[in-house]
Amino acid sequence: MAKELTSRSENYSQWYNDLVLKADLAENSAVRGCMVIKPYGYAIWEKMQAELDRMFKETGHVNAYFPLFIPKSFLSKEAAHVEGFAKECAVVTHYRLKASPDGKGVIVDPEAKLEEELIIRPTSETIIWSTYKNWIQSYRDLPLLINQWANVVRWEMRTRLFLRTAEFLWQEGHTAHATEAEAMTEARLMLNIYAEFAENFMAVPVLKGVKSPNERFAGALETFCIEALMQDGKALQAGTSHFLGQNFAKAFDVTFVDKNNKQDYVWATSWGVSTRLIGALIMAHSDDNGLVLPPKLAPFQVVIVPIYKTDEQLAAITEKVNEIIPKLRKLNISVKFDNNDTKKPGWKFAEYELKGVPVRLAMGVRDLENGTVEVARRDTLTKETVSLENIETYIADLLDNIQKNIFQKAFDYRTTVTRDVNSYEEFKEEIEKGGFLMCHWDGTPETEERIKEETKATIRCIPIDGDLTEGICMYSGKPSAQRVVFARAY
Amino acid sequence: MAKELTSRSENYSQWYNDLVLKADLAENSAVRGCMVIKPYGYAIWEKMQAELDRMFKETGHVNAYFPLFIPKSFLSKEAAHVEGFAKECAVVTHYRLKASPDGKGVIVDPEAKLEEELIIRPTSETIIWSTYKNWIQSYRDLPLLINQWANVVRWEMRTRLFLRTAEFLWQEGHTAHATEAEAMTEARLMLNIYAEFAENFMAVPVLKGVKSPNERFAGALETFCIEALMQDGKALQAGTSHFLGQNFAKAFDVTFVDKNNKQDYVWATSWGVSTRLIGALIMAHSDDNGLVLPPKLAPFQVVIVPIYKTDEQLAAITEKVNEIIPKLRKLNISVKFDNNDTKKPGWKFAEYELKGVPVRLAMGVRDLENGTVEVARRDTLTKETVSLENIETYIADLLDNIQKNIFQKAFDYRTTVTRDVNSYEEFKEEIEKGGFLMCHWDGTPETEERIKEETKATIRCIPIDGDLTEGICMYSGKPSAQRVVFARAY
Repeated sequence: MAKELTSRSENYSQWYNDLVLKADLAENSAVRGCMVIKPYGYAIWEKMQAELDRMFKETGHVNAYFPLFIPKSFLSKEAAHVEGFAKECAVVTHYRLKASPDGKGVIVDPEAKLEEELIIRPTSETIIWSTYKNWIQSYRDLPLLINQWANVVRWEMRTRLFLRTAEFLWQEGHTAHATEAEAMTEARLMLNIYAEFAENFMAVPVLKGVKSPNERFAGALETFCIEALMQDGKALQAGTSHFLGQNFAKAFDVTFVDKNNKQDYVWATSWGVSTRLIGALIMAHSDDNGLVLPPKLAPFQVVIVPIYKTDEQLAAITEKVNEIIPKLRKLNISVKFDNNDTKKPGWKFAEYELKGVPVRLAMGVRDLENGTVEVARRDTLTKETVSLENIETYIADLLDNIQKNIFQKAFDYRTTVTRDVNSYEEFKEEIEKGGFLMCHWDGTPETEERIKEETKATIRCIPIDGDLTEGICMYSGKPSAQRVVFARAY
Repeated sequence: MAKELTSRSENYSQWYNDLVLKADLAENSAVRGCMVIKPYGYAIWEKMQAELDRMFKETGHVNAYFPLFIPKSFLSKEAAHVEGFAKECAVVTHYRLKASPDGKGVIVDPEAKLEEELIIRPTSETIIWSTYKNWIQSYRDLPLLINQWANVVRWEMRTRLFLRTAEFLWQEGHTAHATEAEAMTEARLMLNIYAEFAENFMAVPVLKGVKSPNERFAGALETFCIEALMQDGKALQAGTSHFLGQNFAKAFDVTFVDKNNKQDYVWATSWGVSTRLIGALIMAHSDDNGLVLPPKLAPFQVVIVPIYKTDEQLAAITEKVNEIIPKLRKLNISVKFDNNDTKKPGWKFAEYELKGVPVRLAMGVRDLENGTVEVARRDTLTKETVSLENIETYIADLLDNIQKNIFQKAFDYRTTVTRDVNSYEEFKEEIEKGGFLMCHWDGTPETEERIKEETKATIRCIPIDGDLTEGICMYSGKPSAQRVVFARAY
């Protein structure tokens, strides 16, 4: 191995951290809680962005950009919203530095104090709805279907690379509608887009549901979410879509005249996914050898490693490789030829395993003679020798196969660790083993809160497509409308 | 006209502002100096990003992401750099708000004061070079060719949409090299990429040159720039590429061991273009009817407007249009069919003129009978009736033609207003007329400073490909190595 990883069984949390660092995905920066996303990690984010952006545009959304700063008074306009976000925000109070009187460095110029402090956006509902007020007068101005790719800051005390950082990158959609039904349809549409992205591109199966009132976005009437399961049995919220009702329209006085010439407040949604998805991707699939990336999001899908002793051998292999590469590229397969002479093949094999490249081709002198190549797949770590004839369609099929296999493996794992639990005694035992526990709950925040305090488990969601059989709350014994999903979560 | 614009001759500055607002490109936000980039303006930025990003990647660069925040002490580490940026930066001093004791809104929690203040990045040399220190040990780690797409903040006192705003979007490349020559080659390469982008995509001719020491980037040994000319005769700096020498490596102690096992400081470049380019694009080409967009950067290149009285007529036209659209898309031509029934054709014509859509097709009943369509081009405002046979190649050629014509027009204008000036008397007269004045200068900051004070003109650049004939400084009468470019500038 090029770089040793802690194994998952030894210490899952350490394994994750080792992997993020050693696969060159990200690292902590000199600024507390903020990460540097390194080129290989950022390349995964770019792949995610491209697919999501395409899906947003195909459903009629457009991109725009709103300010980084939010005037302090804006945050307070929506009562639940300020409650949720005021405790962890970065505040700009001054706009100038000056030379320190002691001649050492610079100090904040006390003369340059802002009249009103500015908050670095933790999310942009307030600044966007203050803007929408000027954009919306009539039903003809609706719907507004706008998305923004941006950085946001939440001053988290405990941070972990990708999963929880003070600054992170995300997209936030903010839509405005003439009717409640239309806004609700939009919130559900975006939930489905997120689920499709998670399953078809990230190869991560997700449960679709709504959050309990306790876990709702601050300012939302309903929060839809997709919940994924990591290999250690902990849940991870992978994306949320909020039905905001008329809360922000009322806070910022955004009204419109409808077709019948009646004035009403505008209906809203917001929805977002972030660089946290990279953390989910890593934890859902990777193994003790390193990353396992689904082909659809891998920065490059195929790496070719030449096995040679002499320059002549390398030249002959290179000639053959240069025939193969254009055939692969023609099928939109991204490929890297690693002819770096300072590293041995064994080092390269370990390195690309660590980096999660889905398919590795190794070509030696005997392969040249036989018209073959050694094909290794990252997901199963299996190898076989394959004829070069129609190698491009073979690889294309293999990549499809890997994408499906990675999903299926995660899906099967989730199935194994998802189970009904009927008593609180059983629950306390089972929650230690991880996974999704399907339990009856009486629907009260009090019960949810107590279970959380006693077991660290939260309601991940009330499943949308779940079994609607009624029952008895495992904690209080009161009636329950349906089973909900409990888990410990990231 | 849908919306009246101030004419350029009446008030150029007001025309620009009207146009940005009325064409729905951007607007001022509730936060002083920060703009909202509206969807149509952002779509132009996305086009720019896509082309630049492709050009960066084709020359071996990769993207990454570094923190928004810079510890205050980092800024001070490079003496010239802090001098240049400390005066206009946003400073984060606290990380929490709390409920106001008077019950009204929130206040900054005095308990949550940062030990060291954080600056919102005005540019990222310091945070990036503090990171590079850990990434670079040996010549094998070099070069690092990294770019970042990000927002930055400079607390400008006088702002103008796109041209100068407190927050703006940009890309910043930061590269690290083993030798001075390699860093210098990189700085020149990126200058050439910027020039190619400006000329071939924005259709804006640019002068390539180096900045005088007065106008250099704070911390650079040499600043290369591209300078464009706006229709009012004022210059606009459209992109810069800096050779930073070993300044930042020394400030952050970034050394490497070279092939001969000798330790040395790393050589650096940085380079950037911003949303300011959108301002340049607008001011270079647009007219009193609205935007004129080069086809290569237009959010959509062709709009089709049906001319009809009855629903049957619209249906027949729509059928024909639905045959044309796929043919255009097959040639990668972006097209919008505006069948909105609530607006009249005249309103639509004015609207798409305002929005600068390069080609407008109007199709009426007579066109259907004749197998024709009316084609109007935005750059010349001319119309002609064209056969539908092979309309797609006709349009493709027309778009090429428009792209070239817009460039040629800007090039010819620049040629007209670029002239040699030999005496300071003449200079003072000529500078009032605008344009590029090619003058001899003695090379001293003092002379440059005085000319600026007396005439508001600055040295835009010392041209790279300029005439190297020696002469006499128009101001001081001292010897001059070559003519340099003076202008008033944005």
